[in-house]
Amino acid sequence: MTRFALTVEFDGRPFMGWQRQAHGPSVQQAIEEAAQAVTGETVVVHCAGRTDAGVHGLGMRAHLDIAKPIAAFRLGEALNARLRPAPVAILDCVEVDDNFHARFSCLARAYEYRIVNRRAPLTVEKGLAWQIPQPLDAAAMHEAAQVLLGVHDFTTFRSAHCQSASPVKSIDWIEVVRDGDRVAARVEARSFLHHQVRSMVGCLALVGMGRWSVADFADALHAADRGRLGLNAPPDGLFFVTALYEGDRLKRAASSTCVDQRN
Amino acid sequence: MTRFALTVEFDGRPFMGWQRQAHGPSVQQAIEEAAQAVTGETVVVHCAGRTDAGVHGLGMRAHLDIAKPIAAFRLGEALNARLRPAPVAILDCVEVDDNFHARFSCLARAYEYRIVNRRAPLTVEKGLAWQIPQPLDAAAMHEAAQVLLGVHDFTTFRSAHCQSASPVKSIDWIEVVRDGDRVAARVEARSFLHHQVRSMVGCLALVGMGRWSVADFADALHAADRGRLGLNAPPDGLFFVTALYEGDRLKRAASSTCVDQRN
Repeated sequence: MTRFALTVEFDGRPFMGWQRQAHGPSVQQAIEEAAQAVTGETVVVHCAGRTDAGVHGLGMRAHLDIAKPIAAFRLGEALNARLRPAPVAILDCVEVDDNFHARFSCLARAYEYRIVNRRAPLTVEKGLAWQIPQPLDAAAMHEAAQVLLGVHDFTTFRSAHCQSASPVKSIDWIEVVRDGDRVAARVEARSFLHHQVRSMVGCLALVGMGRWSVADFADALHAADRGRLGLNAPPDGLFFVTALYEGDRLKRAASSTCVDQRN
Repeated sequence: MTRFALTVEFDGRPFMGWQRQAHGPSVQQAIEEAAQAVTGETVVVHCAGRTDAGVHGLGMRAHLDIAKPIAAFRLGEALNARLRPAPVAILDCVEVDDNFHARFSCLARAYEYRIVNRRAPLTVEKGLAWQIPQPLDAAAMHEAAQVLLGVHDFTTFRSAHCQSASPVKSIDWIEVVRDGDRVAARVEARSFLHHQVRSMVGCLALVGMGRWSVADFADALHAADRGRLGLNAPPDGLFFVTALYEGDRLKRAASSTCVDQRN
């Protein structure tokens, strides 16, 4: 068996999420079926972060094991040929050591949340951003976001369906920036709870609208109480940007906006 | 009658183009039907540039005349409410003088053409960019593009269906820039021939691939012969960015990437 690491881009709109589901299409199923068509083998694909329905991937990392002798470049090309017309693309396919695991070897994950702050509905970016008509104070959102840095009990920002053993996580880096009517929140952490980014961004949006102060936001975090969640952002604007591993930190970081700006 | 100027964003994928057609949906028809639903009047919408099927608009300018008394802001909001779920949005609606004409008063138009230069198929941007697998030399494309500056007979880059009185046009500004695997061509002119941007970009791509030299590109232009067209770029990557008018040059230019970088 040879282990291959994939970098995957996908449009989350037609999928029930990354993980294989009985009741609808998933990114995992699309890649596994493509791999089976290419190799004739039953393949399981593991990823760095199982995204929800409607959440997108720009540089998801995943791995799979193949018995048939095949070069990494050819495997990537063959997977892309079989994936069409599903909006899933293998951006990179490389052979890795057997001890590489897309989920358990992952040192950090980076997400970006995209908001279009205008009254007019979305057209080109429908399903690819969260449209908020009220004017947002992005500087206040950025200030509130810094409250999240470090280790906290993130119960307030955790879905009731979260399977993580503990609600205590750390946020390593977060920023909220405005470019015209675009507001982006970018965040990096070793790992995230279910719905954590969407819940944090939803509450940051309340700060941006002036409905919450920075102190209200901090209080909600420190309460460690899901009942204090103000707003959960829709999946549309959420993008899994990249995942980082030992040894490829510098190489991978070069393609990540998040990491670029921090380093 | 009161004349209103609109700034319109639209996703060109589901449309036969801007102009009303007997055989399929158009952006013009979508806005005219929304205006009729709002006012009860038969309304004709004129635009700055009639885009082809599959071409997108980020800041198309248009105008229409309404007899019913209605404030500009309310008209814009009502049009957006009626346009849903069509991917057409009124970004701005202002009252203008009766001598304003979206097409005939227009001083300059700006387009952007988006290329994703990678082997993997598009996912999130499917239909919103031209995917080119061969490595492109964007600097060579930019150099060739400068050949287009000034007044030329653009017959080589003109569709056989072009209705313009003359193939002689001027290009005021053009650039080709790379950002990672994104290559963008941005161009501004008083007016364009039918298919002109797509034909110019198609041939610039040949330069980027190394199949044409800059001299080959210049020869094709100077031949003023449609038979010398090397390649017509697909509509997917083409965006009408903005149109400029007397008096609002500075205000409008502030939202245009093209103009920002030139001024």
